[in-house]
Amino acid sequence: MARWAYVNGRYLPHDRAAVHVEDRGFQFADGVYEVVTIVEGRFADLDGHMERLGRSLGELRIAWPMAPRSVEFILRELVRRNGIVNGSVYLQVTRGQAPRDFRFPEKARPTLVVTAKRAASFATPAQLDQGVSVISIPDIRWARRDIKTVGLLAQSMGKQQAAEAGAFEAWMIDPDGTVTEGCSSNAWIVTPGGVLTTRPPSHSILNGVTRLALLRLARERGIPVEERAFTLEEALAAREAFLSSAGTFAMPVTRIDGKPVAGGRPGPVTMALRQAYLDSVAGTAQ
Amino acid sequence: MARWAYVNGRYLPHDRAAVHVEDRGFQFADGVYEVVTIVEGRFADLDGHMERLGRSLGELRIAWPMAPRSVEFILRELVRRNGIVNGSVYLQVTRGQAPRDFRFPEKARPTLVVTAKRAASFATPAQLDQGVSVISIPDIRWARRDIKTVGLLAQSMGKQQAAEAGAFEAWMIDPDGTVTEGCSSNAWIVTPGGVLTTRPPSHSILNGVTRLALLRLARERGIPVEERAFTLEEALAAREAFLSSAGTFAMPVTRIDGKPVAGGRPGPVTMALRQAYLDSVAGTAQ
Repeated sequence: MARWAYVNGRYLPHDRAAVHVEDRGFQFADGVYEVVTIVEGRFADLDGHMERLGRSLGELRIAWPMAPRSVEFILRELVRRNGIVNGSVYLQVTRGQAPRDFRFPEKARPTLVVTAKRAASFATPAQLDQGVSVISIPDIRWARRDIKTVGLLAQSMGKQQAAEAGAFEAWMIDPDGTVTEGCSSNAWIVTPGGVLTTRPPSHSILNGVTRLALLRLARERGIPVEERAFTLEEALAAREAFLSSAGTFAMPVTRIDGKPVAGGRPGPVTMALRQAYLDSVAGTAQ
Repeated sequence: MARWAYVNGRYLPHDRAAVHVEDRGFQFADGVYEVVTIVEGRFADLDGHMERLGRSLGELRIAWPMAPRSVEFILRELVRRNGIVNGSVYLQVTRGQAPRDFRFPEKARPTLVVTAKRAASFATPAQLDQGVSVISIPDIRWARRDIKTVGLLAQSMGKQQAAEAGAFEAWMIDPDGTVTEGCSSNAWIVTPGGVLTTRPPSHSILNGVTRLALLRLARERGIPVEERAFTLEEALAAREAFLSSAGTFAMPVTRIDGKPVAGGRPGPVTMALRQAYLDSVAGTAQ
């Protein structure tokens, strides 16, 4: 981790960054978060992340801890203090500290925590050359997956299960057999007919900021796009599969439950979108 | 709140009781908890709460932070330091502090936090005389409600919704129309035929420690008992309805969604079980 963190008005050495045990983020998972990636000194999709943070807060009726522009200032300042060129910032807003009670407190002030992390790289050569593997697991999460809350235990359990299976990610499957998303990423395929396909936003998935950017980039490039739910069987028969997130951009998926997808090689649409995204972050698009 | 709290080996002034921002309880809701009530200086069902804590930890593969007997010692010591005669202790165990990663950390030491609270009373005269009201809401929680995790946002939202409707609790309804439980309590009815009825333990509900004690006390008294799911319609037509939890024992429910239940009066089975429970805690039961 980087050396400095931010907690409720103060920049602190990371080791001393703490919140009260009665912070509602600790006792009720009553908080939301964002992770913003920094590539060569530039925030990737900062506006998109701030907009989604506002949406999450609104859905839970948590007030902004301060003006959004002031939150952005803190992100930039923390990146500067930690000298981060490639990495990420993590920001978490909770309903604040209050005597433990399930009901929302009337007087609590929202808590704002920001931490930062350096990244040596965003993907290994092997991941980009050979793709990553995913496993499928039942989606056991709650019904409001569209809110980016810190209630991440199901996702954590899924990611752990994936790691123990030697996989990079777990794709979660709803009872109807459709893929919802990965534990910390959105799921995509390119169908045999060449249509880029990903689940539409609803209460069933988190509407990824990177997901939205990739959809825009694909449409700009004339790639046929369809937002619809797809099944695991469709993914296994797809021309390409990949996942997207703030930290992975677009990452090729070449094995699902141990079976090769798309001949076991990263596909051209995936890699073109990945590059397009990185170009757009660098401001060198067009 | 009481004056002293306990965090990871230290008794601290409550105001200074803090955990690191990278505690997994704060970032992933990766932790479990128990609330143990103290009545006239005695713990209510301490063994039951410790047993359930062990079960929750086991389901999540979180190690005990120390031997269970040592945890019990801390609970007793905190009650003593705070001079609590009537009240409760809250204990939370998380997977510990680790650099943020969805996967379980290999080296983290579990975090143990204990706080204490005095209670002026466990129920108001009006609650016992007239009963409380509940509203019904959809159960939007995840699929492992049997684990007592701090992922309580859905329950918090439900309790807030109840409070805004002037109700004491919200009963959550599964898509099949059956009542699962309250946001922080189990749900019970006495059918028109006189059968004490509550949902059986499964992944759909938390198996309340007080629930188990009430079942035992009812059976000892020869009250007919059936563990099965009941619908909201059955509850509205029931002879009695009540809720149970560590803090409410057995609390009569006399209105559901604004409609009177059981003539709008607390019923004899409810009140007898409440008294039997309090007697058993006081050690004056047969």
